[in-house]
Amino acid sequence: MSAELFSGVTIGYLAATLTTISFVPQAIKTIRTRDTEGISVLMYLGFAVGVFLWMVYGFVRDDMVIIVANAVTFILALPILVIALINTQRTRRH
Amino acid sequence: MSAELFSGVTIGYLAATLTTISFVPQAIKTIRTRDTEGISVLMYLGFAVGVFLWMVYGFVRDDMVIIVANAVTFILALPILVIALINTQRTRRH
Repeated sequence: MSAELFSGVTIGYLAATLTTISFVPQAIKTIRTRDTEGISVLMYLGFAVGVFLWMVYGFVRDDMVIIVANAVTFILALPILVIALINTQRTRRH
Repeated sequence: MSAELFSGVTIGYLAATLTTISFVPQAIKTIRTRDTEGISVLMYLGFAVGVFLWMVYGFVRDDMVIIVANAVTFILALPILVIALINTQRTRRH
């Protein structure tokens, strides 16, 4: 049990869970406030494409952890990207 | 060559490169403007710890790609987190 707890695989699962669920408070904040002033659109554009490719990589390697972690991250990053893009268009129009 | 180009490993490298360098424009923006209004501190806190654990996982698995990608992401996420934390403290004080 304690050997399993501190094994590399456990650290990997913990790391994947943290980097994935860390986008929950950001997604909630952005959906609620629609405020993306301090957010880089370019970051979320590159990040969303990157996470999508991670998901493809998971399918190629048949790795469920990579698939699930990146599918969830993609679902969380997408509304942030869309709202940031809408706000950028709105700023340009005015 | 073309088989290698579209192989799973190439997709993995491309995905890792994209999710890592996507933080460059965000780090530049945050360091320049110090504006973290739309940014979730909780996200960057969880994300920085998660990326650090990914780095540890890379050391355990002796995987240089995971180590380098996450070391760079950690270096980029850290100033965003620190500036967001400073701004939170400043807001609380006023």
